[in-house]
Amino acid sequence: MVKGNLIVSQSGGPTAVINCSLVGVVQEAFKHEEIGEVYGALYGIEGVLDENLIDFRRESAETLDLLRTTPGSALGMSRRKLTEDDYGRVLDVFKAHNVRYFFYIGGNDSMDTSNKVSKAALERGYELYVVGVPKTVDNDLVATDHCPGYGSAARFVANTVRDTGFDTESGYLSTPVKIVEMMGRHAGWVTAAAVLGKESEIDPPHLVYIPERRTSVEQILTDIAEAHKKYGGVVVALSEGVVGPDGKPLMTAVQAMDAFGHIQLGGVSVWLAQKVKDELGLKCRFEKPDTMQRSSILMASAIDQEEAYRVGRDAVRFALEGHTDCMVALRRDEGPAYHCSTVRVPLAEVANREKLLPDEMIGADGHSITSAFVEYALPLIGGRLMPYARLARHAVPKKL
Amino acid sequence: MVKGNLIVSQSGGPTAVINCSLVGVVQEAFKHEEIGEVYGALYGIEGVLDENLIDFRRESAETLDLLRTTPGSALGMSRRKLTEDDYGRVLDVFKAHNVRYFFYIGGNDSMDTSNKVSKAALERGYELYVVGVPKTVDNDLVATDHCPGYGSAARFVANTVRDTGFDTESGYLSTPVKIVEMMGRHAGWVTAAAVLGKESEIDPPHLVYIPERRTSVEQILTDIAEAHKKYGGVVVALSEGVVGPDGKPLMTAVQAMDAFGHIQLGGVSVWLAQKVKDELGLKCRFEKPDTMQRSSILMASAIDQEEAYRVGRDAVRFALEGHTDCMVALRRDEGPAYHCSTVRVPLAEVANREKLLPDEMIGADGHSITSAFVEYALPLIGGRLMPYARLARHAVPKKL
Repeated sequence: MVKGNLIVSQSGGPTAVINCSLVGVVQEAFKHEEIGEVYGALYGIEGVLDENLIDFRRESAETLDLLRTTPGSALGMSRRKLTEDDYGRVLDVFKAHNVRYFFYIGGNDSMDTSNKVSKAALERGYELYVVGVPKTVDNDLVATDHCPGYGSAARFVANTVRDTGFDTESGYLSTPVKIVEMMGRHAGWVTAAAVLGKESEIDPPHLVYIPERRTSVEQILTDIAEAHKKYGGVVVALSEGVVGPDGKPLMTAVQAMDAFGHIQLGGVSVWLAQKVKDELGLKCRFEKPDTMQRSSILMASAIDQEEAYRVGRDAVRFALEGHTDCMVALRRDEGPAYHCSTVRVPLAEVANREKLLPDEMIGADGHSITSAFVEYALPLIGGRLMPYARLARHAVPKKL
Repeated sequence: MVKGNLIVSQSGGPTAVINCSLVGVVQEAFKHEEIGEVYGALYGIEGVLDENLIDFRRESAETLDLLRTTPGSALGMSRRKLTEDDYGRVLDVFKAHNVRYFFYIGGNDSMDTSNKVSKAALERGYELYVVGVPKTVDNDLVATDHCPGYGSAARFVANTVRDTGFDTESGYLSTPVKIVEMMGRHAGWVTAAAVLGKESEIDPPHLVYIPERRTSVEQILTDIAEAHKKYGGVVVALSEGVVGPDGKPLMTAVQAMDAFGHIQLGGVSVWLAQKVKDELGLKCRFEKPDTMQRSSILMASAIDQEEAYRVGRDAVRFALEGHTDCMVALRRDEGPAYHCSTVRVPLAEVANREKLLPDEMIGADGHSITSAFVEYALPLIGGRLMPYARLARHAVPKKL
């Protein structure tokens, strides 16, 4: 293999385990003498354009170890999309620093960027090994069983929706409705995880709305009223990206219905909670954990942490085997026990595509999630949640 | 001791450990032959008024054990305040069921109710042992070092504000401001816990607003602008009960400033996030974990779980020693290692009073929390948080 330096960078929204992948790349790189300097580009690809590079060999081993359980993106994040002109600049920087290995940790945008960097190098005859490292809580990358980051977000959502649901159930008599708003603009993976702790019909959540199924404010209110009648209270798991009858985000419809310009405040759950009060006369609270979903370390999935490290590590191994223009993907192995192997998929296959929740994981009623999803997702959060109990409540005969 | 039956009930908002106290009462009661039947009143004191009682002897041992780590209030909650007439009815029900032991798990309202039940029994010459069991995430009960429930809420807040803060820091370049809204209408204990993971000036949160110190929208915006200049981004821990210059909740001022009637949507953080965008031109996100703060089991404090069980257990022991009209309180023992003993305090001392954050725990600037608070609160969440790391970021010399 060509000897040269390495650049790793992080892109897009952080996850609870994105630093595991970073450390996986760096610690593996340290083991190979083909790799000279190990650089990090700050703030994603912008750090390359600006030559804003840092030297990982000067970081302490302790820092790297601690980073595996530190949330956020240690190198900072960027959402910049490169223009055609930028790719020339990227290669100039790579040449100037003799960079021969480039690892980009990110989602489908980042895989597109990686793909274009790889092509630009090929066109110019510059020997460069580009391997993408998948990362996104949205779990919407194609060609991989799942995305590192998703398992931890799913574990947070599964546990906290169940917990807050049990809390809500205690107070059904005073505040019978709770809406929990989850991340995921186009895909319902994170929201669907709310059902992973649901063991019976009465368990929260009772209604789940994801972007894959169109709905309407009227439909949601009708569903809530029905569930309230049935269970005495309702816990709703709502995706921030839930869509209306026209396929556009429900918030668009919402905005059209209000002229005061305050509607964007807080997103769809805030508005819907008010609607439940106004139209159904039911007290309603909402929760918006926002980036807590993708950053909680105590809630992180141990399997997710391990896999995130491994996709980073194996990205380096694949590059050193001479592979380029590919992304490390996870392939679920056959057999009773859960295990994923790392494999390579061409970047062009992943770039700019989205994997939505498939039909078989969505209930026919449009507001529930099937057992096919549960079977798929449970191993990613480390298996079934710890059991909870309800009192049997054997009544004492009245005397008065 | 008089032989008779027992009623236990839960009141007010749940905590992550309120069921530990319930199980503490029930399992201890099972050990004493002075106690005949062990009943639970559903939905707080309403269950007594309605004779809506359940029989704990018919619950399985497994259910009781699992309840120790089940969130919510297993008996359901109520916020009903009794009228004078109701106390007669309470005693009628007690007499009808030969109830001689009454344990009410709750906050200062519940201690007032317990105190009045106790007095009513004394007036009528009915032998009754009433012991209050403290519970509230607000930590605002007087005469106890702290309240069971608080440690778990504090642990959730300390961890998630730090986690979401590190996540926010990764993206300071695109969204530099994050507001996290915490529970606590009158007392800042829960919000203050946001600093328990803060080790340096650059760590989140940078600004903390609690109800104990008046502030204003203008002041908060000025503070945010300054902190943004200094740190490149700002994480704000905001109490839902933050007060304006007139000592009234800031939301009152907010409502006065807007005629559209939509302002109550989502509380103060939603509105303030919009204000940061409009007035400072800074992108701002908010988090509202709401009842997640008081229900997360994976985030619960092990010490809190143990103490919650113990105050329930010792309530029964105190009653059987002949004590009544008292609440079990926690007294912090002298010595280097943290330990609290259970003691008794008269219900009248606790009823309807509030313990706010004392001056020495609040920074002179009005938006910070002192080390006195950290020393007080750290043992309640199980000590220092696990360490996180930031890269030293040694710059690579530019070549272009």
